[in-house]
Amino acid sequence: MKNCIVAQSGGPTVAINASLAGVLDEASQNYDNVYGSLNGILGILNDNIINLSDKMKEVSDFVQLLKITPAMYLGSCRYKLPKADIDPDVYEKIFKYFQDHDITGFYYIGGNDSMDTVLQLSKYASAHNIDVTIMGVPKTIDNDLCHTDHTPGFGSAAKYIATAMREIAYDTSIYPLESVTIVEIMGRDAGWLTAAAALATTPYGLGPDMIYLPEVAFDKEAFINDVKNTLSHKHNVLIAISEGIRDADGKYVSASSSTVDSFGHSQLSGAGKTLEYLVSDKLGIKVRSIEINLPQRCAAHIASATDLNESMELGRTAVRKAINGTTGEMAILTRTNNAPYTVVYDSADISQIANEVKSVPRNYINEPGNNVTQEMIDYLSPLIVGESEVEYDHGLPKYLTLEHLYK
Amino acid sequence: MKNCIVAQSGGPTVAINASLAGVLDEASQNYDNVYGSLNGILGILNDNIINLSDKMKEVSDFVQLLKITPAMYLGSCRYKLPKADIDPDVYEKIFKYFQDHDITGFYYIGGNDSMDTVLQLSKYASAHNIDVTIMGVPKTIDNDLCHTDHTPGFGSAAKYIATAMREIAYDTSIYPLESVTIVEIMGRDAGWLTAAAALATTPYGLGPDMIYLPEVAFDKEAFINDVKNTLSHKHNVLIAISEGIRDADGKYVSASSSTVDSFGHSQLSGAGKTLEYLVSDKLGIKVRSIEINLPQRCAAHIASATDLNESMELGRTAVRKAINGTTGEMAILTRTNNAPYTVVYDSADISQIANEVKSVPRNYINEPGNNVTQEMIDYLSPLIVGESEVEYDHGLPKYLTLEHLYK
Repeated sequence: MKNCIVAQSGGPTVAINASLAGVLDEASQNYDNVYGSLNGILGILNDNIINLSDKMKEVSDFVQLLKITPAMYLGSCRYKLPKADIDPDVYEKIFKYFQDHDITGFYYIGGNDSMDTVLQLSKYASAHNIDVTIMGVPKTIDNDLCHTDHTPGFGSAAKYIATAMREIAYDTSIYPLESVTIVEIMGRDAGWLTAAAALATTPYGLGPDMIYLPEVAFDKEAFINDVKNTLSHKHNVLIAISEGIRDADGKYVSASSSTVDSFGHSQLSGAGKTLEYLVSDKLGIKVRSIEINLPQRCAAHIASATDLNESMELGRTAVRKAINGTTGEMAILTRTNNAPYTVVYDSADISQIANEVKSVPRNYINEPGNNVTQEMIDYLSPLIVGESEVEYDHGLPKYLTLEHLYK
Repeated sequence: MKNCIVAQSGGPTVAINASLAGVLDEASQNYDNVYGSLNGILGILNDNIINLSDKMKEVSDFVQLLKITPAMYLGSCRYKLPKADIDPDVYEKIFKYFQDHDITGFYYIGGNDSMDTVLQLSKYASAHNIDVTIMGVPKTIDNDLCHTDHTPGFGSAAKYIATAMREIAYDTSIYPLESVTIVEIMGRDAGWLTAAAALATTPYGLGPDMIYLPEVAFDKEAFINDVKNTLSHKHNVLIAISEGIRDADGKYVSASSSTVDSFGHSQLSGAGKTLEYLVSDKLGIKVRSIEINLPQRCAAHIASATDLNESMELGRTAVRKAINGTTGEMAILTRTNNAPYTVVYDSADISQIANEVKSVPRNYINEPGNNVTQEMIDYLSPLIVGESEVEYDHGLPKYLTLEHLYK
């Protein structure tokens, strides 16, 4: 008997189940049983495990349905593994579980924190000569992991953002009256997601007029001038901002507008709301700010097929590498050509990846810092190509049930 | 020569261009030229007209592309026609324009205010024996017009809301920790849109746990008890509320939480934000509120095919009726059967429609007022069936250009 366990951790994305589908697809050909640990590593610690090999037999098209289902089929956790020298009990428990259940492979799909878990477990296995391969599969809508051209989940989030921005641009352009619409987009430290708004722009210029990322210091005076200049030749101004924009001192723009609620608590307004107040105060014209919110990371019905396919292939890559003896690495992808777009799959030492952040390079942002450059457009464009194969039942997207998480 | 003019007015929806496509499709077979007035009735007053018959010849699939394009191809206006006895000049100008351009039919696609314009123009024509037929085609995502089973644009908004709620339910169910998520949905006076959140619920109960509409007085204490009771058997509570919920005195819940921004202005928090503060204050658990915002009325990529087809047919109906001599009426639809779902198309006297509001009947809401009943589900279900035939270009929905609005 030779079995493996897979788990998911961190915040959800539209593509993290596609990576699980990839791990399952490849692992089911290489292990007797593929187990799923519910709520990340906690499932192993609490003996809360399901048999995914059985699910594959029970549910027709299980792998295909898994590929297109949003959020996390195995649930998530926010549990951070303690260091082995401080709390060896947790490690002993985990590896005892592996031994008892003939586990020879462990796959963890997640973001930065999850990769740290992969690093700690693989170090422990190596130090104790335990023959279990430990591999990571990346995910984050933020696209801020290093050593991979981009991250699974990002392409779908970018496709949602670009689609929503295009539709909002249509919506806001119908009145021949001056108006400003500010759309706040996720991304506290890196501007990749906000930059995706640029893809919405049509050849005749309908789309976001300005785009502000956290990588360039935000100047309120320059911003108001940008809005004024745009209004001089266009009625309806559309602006995309990152939630994480900050001023030259590194202070978040959102933090400059705290409000007091009816309970007397001080509440932090979002960056969008802060700029809405600013435009209203300085220019006195119709202005609104909106957040496009959770759908950025869960709108699976408009996932990018490129993203889903790549996420699945990264899952497969992790298993293939492990079967060949690799451990303590994370599956990555490298872009080998842009037009036509091609990538190759590989894996990289996890210790190089776990604690770094990939920001937007300065040449991807224009000189005044109020839009992106063609380099950014060229980088982003291939990632949103293709549509999810989601099916509809009574008018609603058909996803795998999450009933097992409720037991 | 016999020509007609069509225009659009009020707020945008995903289906208002489908009604325009229906008018154009039918009118092009019955008039020499179909003109489009840009920015509602203002286009006639300012001589800002385009020839839609020419567009049909120039752009292949023009009618089909129009059908699936969000917002308003002809732009909109917020102009309210003065009464004829107060300002007859405007009426003289409009009908002079009709006479000069051999216009024998005028079609106005819009909401309540636009139907008032249809009423005033048809009264004037009748009083002055002018042989121009004036017909209205309804639209509003709010579904609050009387004398029609439902309104064009509502089904698509309902489909978006149900899809977003399902995806948000997946997203919020991944952690085995207590959390409350409050989703604020459009609809200031009627709860139809918020009710559509109920369609997201899966057979095993994943979906909104509570739904609050403006038609039932909102009680904060009962609300907190509802949340507590749900938390006793479920970790992640999901709640849909209408932006227009109000207390027993008719006071908006949103109005009970004004905040002061950094400029010292008093700002009204949304109903969601107000309840977020309330849950945090009373229960002290993780809570967030989100608005799903503009995509409710512009997410054309996930429009309901039923809605688009019906909206188009209502446009055709208005023209057919006018050709047969009807004037001063609005196209309507009547549901003749629910399973299988069938409707018939007709028109009704506009004076009965223009100033009434259709609220959610009490039997569509459960007794405690915290969810909808099966009657509501049965009413809503057929309206979201079928998907838009939108095509994608480089990963983004392909819509008709709005370049002509920028001239």
